[in-house]
Amino acid sequence: MPRRSNAEAAQTRTAIIDRAVETASVEGLEGVTVGKLADDLGMSKAGVIGHFGNKSELQRATLHKAWQIFGAQVWEPARSRPGGLRRLSAICDAWVKHITNSPFPGGCFMCTVSTEWDAREGELRDEVREGWQLWQSTLRREARRAIEQGELTPDADPDQIAFDLMAIAMGLNQSVQLLHDRTAAKRARRAIDRVLQRA
Amino acid sequence: MPRRSNAEAAQTRTAIIDRAVETASVEGLEGVTVGKLADDLGMSKAGVIGHFGNKSELQRATLHKAWQIFGAQVWEPARSRPGGLRRLSAICDAWVKHITNSPFPGGCFMCTVSTEWDAREGELRDEVREGWQLWQSTLRREARRAIEQGELTPDADPDQIAFDLMAIAMGLNQSVQLLHDRTAAKRARRAIDRVLQRA
Repeated sequence: MPRRSNAEAAQTRTAIIDRAVETASVEGLEGVTVGKLADDLGMSKAGVIGHFGNKSELQRATLHKAWQIFGAQVWEPARSRPGGLRRLSAICDAWVKHITNSPFPGGCFMCTVSTEWDAREGELRDEVREGWQLWQSTLRREARRAIEQGELTPDADPDQIAFDLMAIAMGLNQSVQLLHDRTAAKRARRAIDRVLQRA
Repeated sequence: MPRRSNAEAAQTRTAIIDRAVETASVEGLEGVTVGKLADDLGMSKAGVIGHFGNKSELQRATLHKAWQIFGAQVWEPARSRPGGLRRLSAICDAWVKHITNSPFPGGCFMCTVSTEWDAREGELRDEVREGWQLWQSTLRREARRAIEQGELTPDADPDQIAFDLMAIAMGLNQSVQLLHDRTAAKRARRAIDRVLQRA
């Protein structure tokens, strides 16, 4: 068999991860099995796992890809806005869109893996937690700036704001995905407006 | 082999379901496998499945048991309170306790199965959704009463209140389970107080 080029190998790896992200958004990261991916992609199991070494590495690559997509959709449009309330509002706008019109077939990937991994143990759980913690600290930082800049009332609490926004995201995903509530985005925006009440 | 008595059979069935509820709170309802339960309980696979007929019935019985526990912990303490704001507040108090000091090893069962099943198909998904819808309509009904009784501002929106409270519950479970945030209950109570602001 001729040795495949590096470019071909990278392309195959990307195709495997893309498919794994789709599967995991519906069935969780534990639903990503080498056998299922091999079937879906018309590959051998050895061909799939050869790109990663083991299942954990495949799951980790899947998680990283999903974070990348989240970052591109929710953080990137906001990062060029001035820090503080304007950036926080841009984050929330993009976040509501990301959850309501999810790029993943199973809805918000971060929400799914949050409850899937919250009571498990191991490195993957730690990565899920660290990802959410990083996001929480981003929200907190922008809320703090908004308060310092007088854009929110001085008694507003950055930790509370981060908690509230994360809760709204989890609730929005539930309303959209589980309950098929067509008013979910409107409700989430209303809840966000109350959290980010201007000074 | 002597025929087991009905009482013995019922006892064994209960033990299987109890163990399945614990497992599912950590690994989801799809993590409940006959093989694992048989191992955990020192039974044969046939002995486990014989009480249910098939895996779906076992999962359904597991879900029903978890709902029962939720009802006993969150609804029962509130149902004797007068309808409206007092009952809604009692529900929220009990709900925060239920999630913060969960009776399940993996935290809020309802939250876990909500994201586990939100993008799957089948009867179990329908049951998860119907359970949450029933709960949502309970919250909405009590909010409506509270408004009618002048306990909340007349422009308060029962649908928005139900959305907000469910989001807070999902966020609280995430903060407790995934992030191990010791201030989570306090933050959830503060968020609830703002949602249920008195007229």
